[in-house]
Amino acid sequence: MPQLFRKIRELRSFIKTVRCEGNSRTIGFVPTMGYLHEGHAELIKLSKLQNDITVVSIYVNPLQFGEGEDFQRYPRDLDRDLALCGELGVDIVFAPTDEEMYPQKPQVRIEIPGLTDILEGAFRPGHFNGVAIVVLKLLHILQPDRVYFGEKDYQQLKVVQRLVEDLSVQVEVVPVPTVRDKDGLALSSRNTYLTQEERESALSIYRSFLLAQRLFSGGNRDPQVIISAVKDFISKHPHVKKIDYVDIRDEELRPVEKVEEGHRLLVAVWVGTTRLIDNWRFSHEEV
Amino acid sequence: MPQLFRKIRELRSFIKTVRCEGNSRTIGFVPTMGYLHEGHAELIKLSKLQNDITVVSIYVNPLQFGEGEDFQRYPRDLDRDLALCGELGVDIVFAPTDEEMYPQKPQVRIEIPGLTDILEGAFRPGHFNGVAIVVLKLLHILQPDRVYFGEKDYQQLKVVQRLVEDLSVQVEVVPVPTVRDKDGLALSSRNTYLTQEERESALSIYRSFLLAQRLFSGGNRDPQVIISAVKDFISKHPHVKKIDYVDIRDEELRPVEKVEEGHRLLVAVWVGTTRLIDNWRFSHEEV
Repeated sequence: MPQLFRKIRELRSFIKTVRCEGNSRTIGFVPTMGYLHEGHAELIKLSKLQNDITVVSIYVNPLQFGEGEDFQRYPRDLDRDLALCGELGVDIVFAPTDEEMYPQKPQVRIEIPGLTDILEGAFRPGHFNGVAIVVLKLLHILQPDRVYFGEKDYQQLKVVQRLVEDLSVQVEVVPVPTVRDKDGLALSSRNTYLTQEERESALSIYRSFLLAQRLFSGGNRDPQVIISAVKDFISKHPHVKKIDYVDIRDEELRPVEKVEEGHRLLVAVWVGTTRLIDNWRFSHEEV
Repeated sequence: MPQLFRKIRELRSFIKTVRCEGNSRTIGFVPTMGYLHEGHAELIKLSKLQNDITVVSIYVNPLQFGEGEDFQRYPRDLDRDLALCGELGVDIVFAPTDEEMYPQKPQVRIEIPGLTDILEGAFRPGHFNGVAIVVLKLLHILQPDRVYFGEKDYQQLKVVQRLVEDLSVQVEVVPVPTVRDKDGLALSSRNTYLTQEERESALSIYRSFLLAQRLFSGGNRDPQVIISAVKDFISKHPHVKKIDYVDIRDEELRPVEKVEEGHRLLVAVWVGTTRLIDNWRFSHEEV
């Protein structure tokens, strides 16, 4: 079983000791909100492969949830997560309390104009401020050599990469491709909210990506045409309540006038009472 | 002579080596914009006393200067600084180029509402964003155990303390009292801008502090009365062109209705073409 830490101070002193054993061992870090699934497992496996020590944090960060969002409802099961981390060979799990992470409410505000105020940031004001603060805190506490983020939360990955570069954080940010269920649904802890019928409607997201990719492969380069087709396709499904956005952006999430390989299709859709996000990378390869 | 580094990568690998020699040696860090004076020397001496290794950075950070400010004019003399660092026993000097520090312009924006938008922040928009970014970058690059800031730039000290706390940066922020010339003028690299006559007018700042302290010691607790007296006193002097602000705040720079021990009188004054800042801590002790 992994070693479980609840306190920053104890974790810090343990890591200091461990790091100095042998010839400066490398630390890989996988930050999560727990309720781990195969997507997290991919991050962990890669960290195990690339580092001497793997640390997983499990913390549902209140700061990145807006009012009326699903902070209370977000699924939590530490025992199950610990068991899974044990199976995967995780060395250290850090599961702090809110009191430990935020003895007082942070007053700092971190923004990246043009990046934290679009897409998710436009629909979830303050979300990326919360993400930026918790990620910087965790990176400061752990000082890992590498940190792993899933491409499922593509905008979050971009925000973290920008922060790390702009602030010279001494860590390598490693992106990991989205893991999908056999039916194409991107793995997410929030999928547990879905009823079987809603899940069927949620599959429209992945299927709309295949549609978009077919349009692209067929020579269509107009973002508006592809966006409209995706919106039309998704909105036809019975449990789709609302589409927050469907957008196509370049790799750095800048607007594009012409779709090219490497550009991203990004969507946020309400299925029942569940908000799902997903994204797709346009490619010239066969799907 | 101290070891001089121009490149982040070389500094990082040197520090890694040095830190691992012996039983985890501590690193003290004194960030400066160079043109060192006795004030910096105090920071360095304290760092020498408290740490195994002392690092001084010398970098005139363009990001914290506004348009039309004195970035170009700011005094620079690396040879003189290196010699002084040598005399003081500094181990490492880090003097990066702009290209090294900012291969591209940072896009992140860091604010602390109620702290970075008052006093200096109100008169120098973007100043503390630039300070926050460069300080975080330097702390990330060096990962020191302690970092030293002069109380002369009191608001800067508070901004850094807040950042370190909110973001769990693993460093102890050590404040060092302002060093004054025999005539009371707070040491600042910008004092070199002053003519002899302007310097005489600049002394009104320190003398107004003594006046304010006398009012406080005499039982006056009304911030507005003290502020008016200070403004009147300073503005009478011939080379004083403009007073940006005179304010009294508590230790955390919150507004106050009643002056108490530990509260701070803060001023920003234009003397000739030179903008000077200084501050005073109210005390019940004899001056």
